[in-house]
Amino acid sequence: MITSRANAKIKWVRGLQARRAEREAAGVFVVEGVRLLEEAAHSAAPAHLVLHTADLDTRGRAAVEALKQQGAPVEAVTPEVMAAASDAQSPPGLLAVVPLPRLPLPAPLTFALVLDRLGDPGNLGTVLRTAAAAGVQAVFLTPGTVDPYNPKVVRAAMGAHFHLPLVAADWAALPAHLAGLDLWRAESGSGLAYDAVDWRRPCALLIGAEASGPGDQARALAPQAVHIFMPGPTESLNAALAAGILLFEAARQRRQRII
Amino acid sequence: MITSRANAKIKWVRGLQARRAEREAAGVFVVEGVRLLEEAAHSAAPAHLVLHTADLDTRGRAAVEALKQQGAPVEAVTPEVMAAASDAQSPPGLLAVVPLPRLPLPAPLTFALVLDRLGDPGNLGTVLRTAAAAGVQAVFLTPGTVDPYNPKVVRAAMGAHFHLPLVAADWAALPAHLAGLDLWRAESGSGLAYDAVDWRRPCALLIGAEASGPGDQARALAPQAVHIFMPGPTESLNAALAAGILLFEAARQRRQRII
Repeated sequence: MITSRANAKIKWVRGLQARRAEREAAGVFVVEGVRLLEEAAHSAAPAHLVLHTADLDTRGRAAVEALKQQGAPVEAVTPEVMAAASDAQSPPGLLAVVPLPRLPLPAPLTFALVLDRLGDPGNLGTVLRTAAAAGVQAVFLTPGTVDPYNPKVVRAAMGAHFHLPLVAADWAALPAHLAGLDLWRAESGSGLAYDAVDWRRPCALLIGAEASGPGDQARALAPQAVHIFMPGPTESLNAALAAGILLFEAARQRRQRII
Repeated sequence: MITSRANAKIKWVRGLQARRAEREAAGVFVVEGVRLLEEAAHSAAPAHLVLHTADLDTRGRAAVEALKQQGAPVEAVTPEVMAAASDAQSPPGLLAVVPLPRLPLPAPLTFALVLDRLGDPGNLGTVLRTAAAAGVQAVFLTPGTVDPYNPKVVRAAMGAHFHLPLVAADWAALPAHLAGLDLWRAESGSGLAYDAVDWRRPCALLIGAEASGPGDQARALAPQAVHIFMPGPTESLNAALAAGILLFEAARQRRQRII
């Protein structure tokens, strides 16, 4: 039982929660809560560390046991120590340090998402959760986008990290990744109405920063714009909402193709 | 210039930010930032109080001047006092106490949203912003839903409060409000696929609580369910995302009718 916040393992977890550089140097990130620990237990690579409080329910105990069977070191901690290690305001009592997933890119790629400097962790996490649900096969994150392994992103993404390949890509590398795909840039009031686009074709959607929209490099990469028709008096949508509406229009069209 | 956090006006604003009962007793709520102050200046009723720091830009000064012309008392405050009065982590330097809007319900009502115990202020605000953009004409909030005038809701709604009638309604009152409308309850994996519904008919969408979904009263009110087909491995969508995808499918169908 770890009873001190000054324990070296707890300090390590706190550093991983707080700093991207420490996550990248160690090749790991932190997940919390039974649902994400279950996802981690389904991935091939064992966790580097599992922390839990004493008051787990049956499902929580099963998730910890599954990770232990894979070879993960497991430590019980006091609620105070968990509160120190956790990024959550109400710590769920279960935490694991897991390897950064290395999911292969599907070939051929037919449905991709490019995120251009999305800055809000909650927005990015919601976009990843939604993209996974819509059947997106890979997400490319341009320089200036918030780290997808930031704990707030991980929490909002609800497990998408374990299913959806996430690729940090600079602008020079993107054309090769996206070769052969129709590229569509979401931009308020510009280009085609979103339901006039044929999303059944191999395609990638590009979403820009929350306040400023797509930048010059995004426009150069994806000259074709698409917008969401808004009948009401509001002038813009939240970036995650806009992404979700566009991705699910694509999912809707793609589903109709095969029925 | 107000220089003390103990000033009675500042204490009043803090109470309004923190407590629903104080907002309801006074019939006012607090808006922050130039965009919401501009919206407030466009509404008929004058603000009860405007606070601003000294460093406003041209647009901010114009918004304050417009509110002053309507008869609102305006007070300059120090940045420290603004930080105390503001609900934002980075106070925008402009704040107004404005009357709760009393927007008339359109007659006939043909596109409504019912929210059943939505608990997260950011989610509710995003839903209101999205509903306004999609052309929803009124939102009904059942008992147990977070207060729509909570400052976090107001911030995320980006001005929807000034355009979209918000009605606190108990379950007994809803059938009369929604008479003649098709009622659809969003529920994961249940009922019709969302693009098989004819949303061009007069209709209302019901969205349930984030974790538990629609409750018994919601099911009794709206026996017909609708779901979003999810091709990916994710088992659920954020409540605001689900609402946005459904409302914009309705907007898409309704737009096609008139073109």
